[in-house]
Amino acid sequence: MKKPGILIVISGPSGAGKGTLAKALMRKREGIELSISATTREKRPGEHDGVTYYYLQEEEFLGKINQGLFLEYAKVYDHYYGTIKEKVLQALENNIDVILEIDIQGALQIKQSYSDAVFIFVLPPSLEVLKERIFCRDREPLEEIEKRLNEVKNELTYIDEYDYVVINDEIEEAVRQLECIIEAEKCKSNHRFFNFDFKGE
Amino acid sequence: MKKPGILIVISGPSGAGKGTLAKALMRKREGIELSISATTREKRPGEHDGVTYYYLQEEEFLGKINQGLFLEYAKVYDHYYGTIKEKVLQALENNIDVILEIDIQGALQIKQSYSDAVFIFVLPPSLEVLKERIFCRDREPLEEIEKRLNEVKNELTYIDEYDYVVINDEIEEAVRQLECIIEAEKCKSNHRFFNFDFKGE
Repeated sequence: MKKPGILIVISGPSGAGKGTLAKALMRKREGIELSISATTREKRPGEHDGVTYYYLQEEEFLGKINQGLFLEYAKVYDHYYGTIKEKVLQALENNIDVILEIDIQGALQIKQSYSDAVFIFVLPPSLEVLKERIFCRDREPLEEIEKRLNEVKNELTYIDEYDYVVINDEIEEAVRQLECIIEAEKCKSNHRFFNFDFKGE
Repeated sequence: MKKPGILIVISGPSGAGKGTLAKALMRKREGIELSISATTREKRPGEHDGVTYYYLQEEEFLGKINQGLFLEYAKVYDHYYGTIKEKVLQALENNIDVILEIDIQGALQIKQSYSDAVFIFVLPPSLEVLKERIFCRDREPLEEIEKRLNEVKNELTYIDEYDYVVINDEIEEAVRQLECIIEAEKCKSNHRFFNFDFKGE
């Protein structure tokens, strides 16, 4: 029997750098992959089924919801998005760690459906820095930025639902912290699989 | 306000290499120290008060027990051994991590008196390796070794009381795991001290 992989749920405000950290982590570590969501929205040019998303018809998606085949799902405006349980569990069984980059509502659903997951909240070093990042990257009007910052303040009230907080000031340092969290989780006494010969003696 | 240090309680069978790991960890990291126990036993040649142990008269030791000044204590044969609460808490308040190398009974006491501590059980890779280590290091008769190995099997039943298990096969790797555990603990959402300006905005 092999030790199962760890399901790593990463949330945090847009602009905190979750995606960048996840990609850097996958470059540094073996045996870790990013979960691909399913969606009912149309495939856009340049996107690929099974790479960007798994593209499902709405009927198919609703059928899977009814059969309890999602670890979590949500309807955002007109489209459904969700994480297919089977894909994730298969990877975990094969000793592969899986990263789920997901919003707070999704994370709370995962807590119900897969409580062994590790919940990490990624934050920028300050609201000021976040403001700059949103401004420089997304070129949004100030009014929109203020709206998003208020959402962030609301999101912060959910931090206690997460096991860990990683502050993404320097990427290298934040990735190192993520690596340590994964390593430490693998040393947890309830995760360790004792395959040495203590029992054989 | 500074983040307090972490109290790291390390237990494990004699021969697992707890002491070696603790020393290696202190060489690699800043801001971490090994707790010095108090004892009522006589100072031996080459030992120094406040370095090897704090040497107390029995009356003084019993007085401190009555005043609840120990994080844990035990009587082993004719002598008392214990960890003075004030010394440890002072270091933690000054943002210094403290390692307590201690037996299971002591660790269980710490769980009562300082539940924020992190509990790590160090194991050799196998009983066979442990046997060799005890034999080579301590040159004990086989009968005595068997007795100690039986004690180890009994100790293993307490593993669930610990947060983490580190298997000391390669020292470098075991030290890296200990470092990761400390780093991860500092990222715990209930440990993080949010001194960035999220609240100020």
